[in-house]
Amino acid sequence: MTSPLDELKSLAREISLVQSVESLLGWDEQTYMPPAAGEFRAEQMTYLSGLAHQKRTSPRVGELLASLAADAAKEDPHSDFAATIHQMKRDFDKQSKLPQKLVEALTHATVIGQQAWVKARAANDFSQFQPHLEKIFGLKREQAEAVGYVAHPYDALLDDYEPDAKSTEVALVLAELRTELVPLVQAILQSGKKPQVDILAREFPTAAQEAFGRAAAAAIGFDFQRGRLDVTHHPFCSSVGPSDCRITTRYQEKFFNCAFFGILHEAGHGMYDQGLRSDQYGLPPGTYLSLGIHESQSRMWENLVGRSRSFWSHFFPQAKATFPVALSDVSADQFYAAVNHVEPSLIRVEADEATYNLHIIVRFELEQALLSGDLKTADVPGAWREKYKQYLGIEPSTDAEGCLQDIHWSAGLIGYFPTYSLGNLYAAQFFDQARRVLGDLDAQFARGEFRPLLEWLRDNIHTRGRNYTASQLVQLVTGKPLSHESLVRSLRDKLAPLYGI
Amino acid sequence: MTSPLDELKSLAREISLVQSVESLLGWDEQTYMPPAAGEFRAEQMTYLSGLAHQKRTSPRVGELLASLAADAAKEDPHSDFAATIHQMKRDFDKQSKLPQKLVEALTHATVIGQQAWVKARAANDFSQFQPHLEKIFGLKREQAEAVGYVAHPYDALLDDYEPDAKSTEVALVLAELRTELVPLVQAILQSGKKPQVDILAREFPTAAQEAFGRAAAAAIGFDFQRGRLDVTHHPFCSSVGPSDCRITTRYQEKFFNCAFFGILHEAGHGMYDQGLRSDQYGLPPGTYLSLGIHESQSRMWENLVGRSRSFWSHFFPQAKATFPVALSDVSADQFYAAVNHVEPSLIRVEADEATYNLHIIVRFELEQALLSGDLKTADVPGAWREKYKQYLGIEPSTDAEGCLQDIHWSAGLIGYFPTYSLGNLYAAQFFDQARRVLGDLDAQFARGEFRPLLEWLRDNIHTRGRNYTASQLVQLVTGKPLSHESLVRSLRDKLAPLYGI
Repeated sequence: MTSPLDELKSLAREISLVQSVESLLGWDEQTYMPPAAGEFRAEQMTYLSGLAHQKRTSPRVGELLASLAADAAKEDPHSDFAATIHQMKRDFDKQSKLPQKLVEALTHATVIGQQAWVKARAANDFSQFQPHLEKIFGLKREQAEAVGYVAHPYDALLDDYEPDAKSTEVALVLAELRTELVPLVQAILQSGKKPQVDILAREFPTAAQEAFGRAAAAAIGFDFQRGRLDVTHHPFCSSVGPSDCRITTRYQEKFFNCAFFGILHEAGHGMYDQGLRSDQYGLPPGTYLSLGIHESQSRMWENLVGRSRSFWSHFFPQAKATFPVALSDVSADQFYAAVNHVEPSLIRVEADEATYNLHIIVRFELEQALLSGDLKTADVPGAWREKYKQYLGIEPSTDAEGCLQDIHWSAGLIGYFPTYSLGNLYAAQFFDQARRVLGDLDAQFARGEFRPLLEWLRDNIHTRGRNYTASQLVQLVTGKPLSHESLVRSLRDKLAPLYGI
Repeated sequence: MTSPLDELKSLAREISLVQSVESLLGWDEQTYMPPAAGEFRAEQMTYLSGLAHQKRTSPRVGELLASLAADAAKEDPHSDFAATIHQMKRDFDKQSKLPQKLVEALTHATVIGQQAWVKARAANDFSQFQPHLEKIFGLKREQAEAVGYVAHPYDALLDDYEPDAKSTEVALVLAELRTELVPLVQAILQSGKKPQVDILAREFPTAAQEAFGRAAAAAIGFDFQRGRLDVTHHPFCSSVGPSDCRITTRYQEKFFNCAFFGILHEAGHGMYDQGLRSDQYGLPPGTYLSLGIHESQSRMWENLVGRSRSFWSHFFPQAKATFPVALSDVSADQFYAAVNHVEPSLIRVEADEATYNLHIIVRFELEQALLSGDLKTADVPGAWREKYKQYLGIEPSTDAEGCLQDIHWSAGLIGYFPTYSLGNLYAAQFFDQARRVLGDLDAQFARGEFRPLLEWLRDNIHTRGRNYTASQLVQLVTGKPLSHESLVRSLRDKLAPLYGI
């Protein structure tokens, strides 16, 4: 006789098999799929996602969860068993609350919405996209009502990406961050110092960039026996199984940062996936906690490690040997200053470490106002320009480099943006704690030792899966609730000497 | 209301979606999958093949087929409708006759059998493999009994790869082929002439080989918008959808033939898949007819086109420009003679166009004798050596280069080998007919025109799917039943002048 728990686990395993196959199809679509194969690929993926949805919401899953609820309630809520039942029930209940018609309407509106967005952005014409934005926000409001919420409908959407997070709390910490960042960025702008950023725009041959990026990813701990690196237009990290994590990047011959820091970023995501418990694959204890926690891993390796002076103490001699033409007359200090340059810009994905969060705050504030109805979709371009002027001191002259720049809203990803900033905040607070525990991290990095940090992340974050909420994890790991302080201090400590402020 | 036919088609479409996803997983496993991901990949593939089998043999498919049988019987048997019902019923009945226990036992025995074969071949120790061979042939005998046959159990197995073929007929045509080939190969061996084959073993840089092979594949008609070319240890062609055909090859820096003729061969397979009717994808009218017919397409492009004098009239100047170091002192005639060199050898996959079929005949005769019980598995090594001596005039000194060289038997692919030779026979007979219909094919090839031949193949073979049996198709296209004559004449016409015989 199979026990109810074993049957539940086996159903979860089946769902995860289907989802892992979907991941491979998605990865292949971006990397190697022949140009004409897109239509059939959509059919394959629609079939698999329907199959996964059907299995996820099957009545048998509900029955098994109900039969195990009483036993789970007796256990430590952070045990594998209790977390498995709690999180699966949470997902099942949420999925089951969504009427099939709404799911279909959302799928349709976002497929059409993305196509309209591509055209509107190319034509730099917000009016083409506005009716779709209206439609999508309307459906997302319906989704929030269907799923339910306590304080604000935004919470119901945010929950898809950052489970258990509440928008009032996120708003508070982001407002505090904004209050600190705006004057910091102003001070940098007014400082007379500017690093020699043109050294990053010299000739960096693609093959050399790839070799260097690959070596750095392996050095910090990305396991190429259980993963790979490919080229895509939009970089990402996707796991196709417990030992199959695939990251991608893109190369610009005349800009060093794009591929290199992109690789560190995706490798950070990948090392989280590679650190999940493979014996719990497809179950909550073997699943990443939230997008914010995922982003904390990518941002930590990209910025807190990869843009540190000690990291380049170790890697700059190798960089010089790899790119002798570009870097022969450059010192490690000059290079370090250049990769940390701060300058307000219009495009989020190209933003530096300090201004990046201001881009996110603009979006977070706008989508809350759109969802509540305080802001009309027709007024988005104006509101966007105003906030950019207020927070970043610059404003876009076109909507293409303004409110049309991101795919998220057209794809129905409302409530997703704040997870990027949450990731930065978590990263800084975790990293502070790691420094406290692991001794002189900078001395380790300068010797090329990244294993202690990775193992600390494995023990404290990766192997804890979804057995805690993100707030619980932050409290457990760092001894205090999430705050803007670590991130602000980390930025100030780095940028003040560089800009003499 | 969905009509029974529409419901059946939609079930077939679903099955083909699952199978296409399986194909992608198989392709990825050979090309890009990280080394450590194999175990989970096996789990993904097992799940999908189970799902496909379950859908293929679902009672609903049987009911729908039964309800449509009477209508189908009234139609032209080669119409899409009649062929759909007939072939789906044929597959359904066969699949349903196989007891689940036997399917599982075969899967298990062949997974274990392949592992044992790898070890036995590496250790050059047939005795390690012999119990597995015994087990597998025993289970295949059970399979033949379960499926049923009229004359010989071998027919039941052959039918999996070459539907409707009968082993007595295949044996007859292969015996006639053997009778002609053995003295032809003898005469070549005794001729004093030998082409300068060392020119093919000069330095052919991989990147140049890839560019040249890719250009040739595109020139003969492989559509890279709907396909791609990658590197694998064992080359293959796999279709992941109606517009997604993937071929692979491997490069040897010091041997021209391996990659180049491999690419033409796989491109020939690929062009068949690309020529199938995409509106009938997953249904018999949009499916390849048999492995023999598939092989006829690969062999035609590889040998009858790709090893012709006229092909090299067009391509040799390009080859010379691509490989200036290797080919500067070589003439087109020398090159043509070298790529057509005939010499008995021990390894099937390295065999030339004339001796290749003798390798197949050895295997076909041995597996018939094994199945009937006339040959004991323990006696395979001796029987193998004897037949090689008799047909090819040479014999292996080790079993690794003898009866352990092929994966097929360990994988349970009994009855598969003859499809290779059937492919050569079909190819030559089709090609003779194409010459008759299309005028001076050689003049066309010399001008780099391959489109007329491809279009003729599209019209006469590819778009006919499974609406005919292979014998019917041969009769329909060439006006006569399959015979050894075209192939023997083609070989003699080419080889007699080259070897002065």
